[in-house]
Amino acid sequence: MLLDPVLPRFGANYVPSAGWFYSWLDYDAAAVRRDLADLAALGLDHVRVFPIWPWIQPNRGIIRERAISDLLDTIDAAAEVGLSVAVDLIQGHLSSFDFLPSWVLTWHRASLFEDPIVRDGLTAYAEAVARAVATRPNVFAITLGNEVNNLWPDSTTTPESSTSWAQDLLVTVKKAAPDVLALHSVFDDAWYKPNHPFLPVDVVDLGELSTVHSWVFNGVSRVDGPLGPATLTHADYLVELAVATSTDPDRPVWLQEIGVPGPDIPVDLQAEFTRRTVEAVVHNPALFGITWWSSHDIDRRLLDFPDREYDLGLFTVDHQRKPAADALAEVIAEIRSTGVQAQPATTLVSPVDLRTEPHRRAEIAPGSPFHLSWVAARAHSAVRIVFPA
Amino acid sequence: MLLDPVLPRFGANYVPSAGWFYSWLDYDAAAVRRDLADLAALGLDHVRVFPIWPWIQPNRGIIRERAISDLLDTIDAAAEVGLSVAVDLIQGHLSSFDFLPSWVLTWHRASLFEDPIVRDGLTAYAEAVARAVATRPNVFAITLGNEVNNLWPDSTTTPESSTSWAQDLLVTVKKAAPDVLALHSVFDDAWYKPNHPFLPVDVVDLGELSTVHSWVFNGVSRVDGPLGPATLTHADYLVELAVATSTDPDRPVWLQEIGVPGPDIPVDLQAEFTRRTVEAVVHNPALFGITWWSSHDIDRRLLDFPDREYDLGLFTVDHQRKPAADALAEVIAEIRSTGVQAQPATTLVSPVDLRTEPHRRAEIAPGSPFHLSWVAARAHSAVRIVFPA
Repeated sequence: MLLDPVLPRFGANYVPSAGWFYSWLDYDAAAVRRDLADLAALGLDHVRVFPIWPWIQPNRGIIRERAISDLLDTIDAAAEVGLSVAVDLIQGHLSSFDFLPSWVLTWHRASLFEDPIVRDGLTAYAEAVARAVATRPNVFAITLGNEVNNLWPDSTTTPESSTSWAQDLLVTVKKAAPDVLALHSVFDDAWYKPNHPFLPVDVVDLGELSTVHSWVFNGVSRVDGPLGPATLTHADYLVELAVATSTDPDRPVWLQEIGVPGPDIPVDLQAEFTRRTVEAVVHNPALFGITWWSSHDIDRRLLDFPDREYDLGLFTVDHQRKPAADALAEVIAEIRSTGVQAQPATTLVSPVDLRTEPHRRAEIAPGSPFHLSWVAARAHSAVRIVFPA
Repeated sequence: MLLDPVLPRFGANYVPSAGWFYSWLDYDAAAVRRDLADLAALGLDHVRVFPIWPWIQPNRGIIRERAISDLLDTIDAAAEVGLSVAVDLIQGHLSSFDFLPSWVLTWHRASLFEDPIVRDGLTAYAEAVARAVATRPNVFAITLGNEVNNLWPDSTTTPESSTSWAQDLLVTVKKAAPDVLALHSVFDDAWYKPNHPFLPVDVVDLGELSTVHSWVFNGVSRVDGPLGPATLTHADYLVELAVATSTDPDRPVWLQEIGVPGPDIPVDLQAEFTRRTVEAVVHNPALFGITWWSSHDIDRRLLDFPDREYDLGLFTVDHQRKPAADALAEVIAEIRSTGVQAQPATTLVSPVDLRTEPHRRAEIAPGSPFHLSWVAARAHSAVRIVFPA
């Protein structure tokens, strides 16, 4: 299962082709195996999987055994085709939808981040799921939840609460699954939005490596998308920000989500975007892995998703490879053949210390003078970032 | 299946003994059959059953076939022991918990009562479930949802929206299930709270009969509970209010919920409360039926329920009959043997016309001078209510 450690991992965020994540409610082991075979055939080595919290813990006192066994079956199905697995726990947020149990809603309304009883419930959930999935040797990581900062503002929080919430849950996960990476995950408002109550230091101090999610619609596609240098290097920029912000120079960074959202990346440019954005980040020595969002499209009979979410799959809902899939498979094969290369690098000093000045995050956001100068320098070499002394 | 039409129906609100309504997620046909056998053995003739909306329609575009077939199996299981069935659609609200799908929450937040897209989704849900359950000959009623007015204030509404919402859904249900009673259901704030955006006229104008829910903790137990006359006659008072408010003198009233909540009704008085409250309402000529809340207790390993909810069952979670069950079985047997009797009645004029002056509802609420004079008169005879000319 283990690849050459100098090579980054390549994987996909697993979105079931039939019935999206609603399929957990009618688990179909054969359908899951067919989906995972699609991914293994691309040469991927891992998948990230997403159980739905309120369907596993519909009451604070219940952990549904059958839901856990369905999750374990998905993990086993991945093993059958040579895929390792990362499990995200608290979904929580997926593709604009928040899944929340009745015991935190309306008459029981309470913040996931701040209410001690809800935190007790989440701790019990994280403990149970982490312990169960850790019985499977192909599970390499457990992330607290997908982009948990999307659960704010519906759940109130402060930077202090967000940090302690993640810290406490990471301790729970590590205790329940000592041989598995315990990780945190937030979307990039944590890097760019001045008053966002999840901080850059959370990304780089919490959990055993840093995770970043690069979505071009969050800024760079307005700078020069779809194939401009800012757009193609946004993933690498986030990796460099994470490296710069960490106090550990060797802490890896997992590009846990990247994809080809329309209309920002038009269909006929998706293959080229895929190849070039992977090439722009894959040689970064901090890179732990690249995990594509997503494995499969969403059936358009499922309603109310933002339009771009339907077509993010490497495969259609009927298992046809899309252009990004071919491009990804090719670039993975090439990198496995040639290896990653140490690249010349220059250094740029950020105007902001993201560890101590999160209120100045906008000064390094996409389109900021600093970002644009980083992009200009990136045309010639890798560009490390350092904070002002 | 049909009883002598002059006798009211007697039934129970079916709360599964193992796993409460969470049991829909792990449907156990044998467990349901054991629960329903408990109820049939009491001499009941019907159950009211509660599917959970977001587990049947997790996406606006999905109606889960297996969830529908589980619901049909429960209906068939009831038929096997001679029970007819009323189905409530939009749960929605149960015992302090609101079950809401992700497509009406947080980033998709919208009012169930006012948002046209959500109303479209609810219409599709009501149509599908009503059509499915109408295939079963022992289904006699479909109610839009359990106490849907508890979904406000989380979902905004106005009296106009509440009324049109129910009207439209009732048309949908009747079309999908023409041979089944189509009903509305609200808890008693609709009768007593001046600014409540669900009106008394909704209870008596919408659907094919009126439904009332009599809970002593909503006022009367503070007047003279647990065995005082106001407490024991509260169900009959609600039936009389519904009769008075309807423009149809023959419109039946279904006492769809009544029970023995602690601490208002202490355990050692539950049998007496049960017998006497049934005796006080059963001879009311408007009465369609009495449906006990609930069939089975809630396992205390399930967390976060209001304390009184755990012990409302006629049976414990391990199928032991409780005192209210024995009392109910006895009084049902007696009434079936002796029949209901026309009783002498006096008439009291309400200070308020509930059809036209809902803002004055507090003047007829428990403890109001009108209510107390009704209770005093009720000691001597039945007491009809008329509105001021």
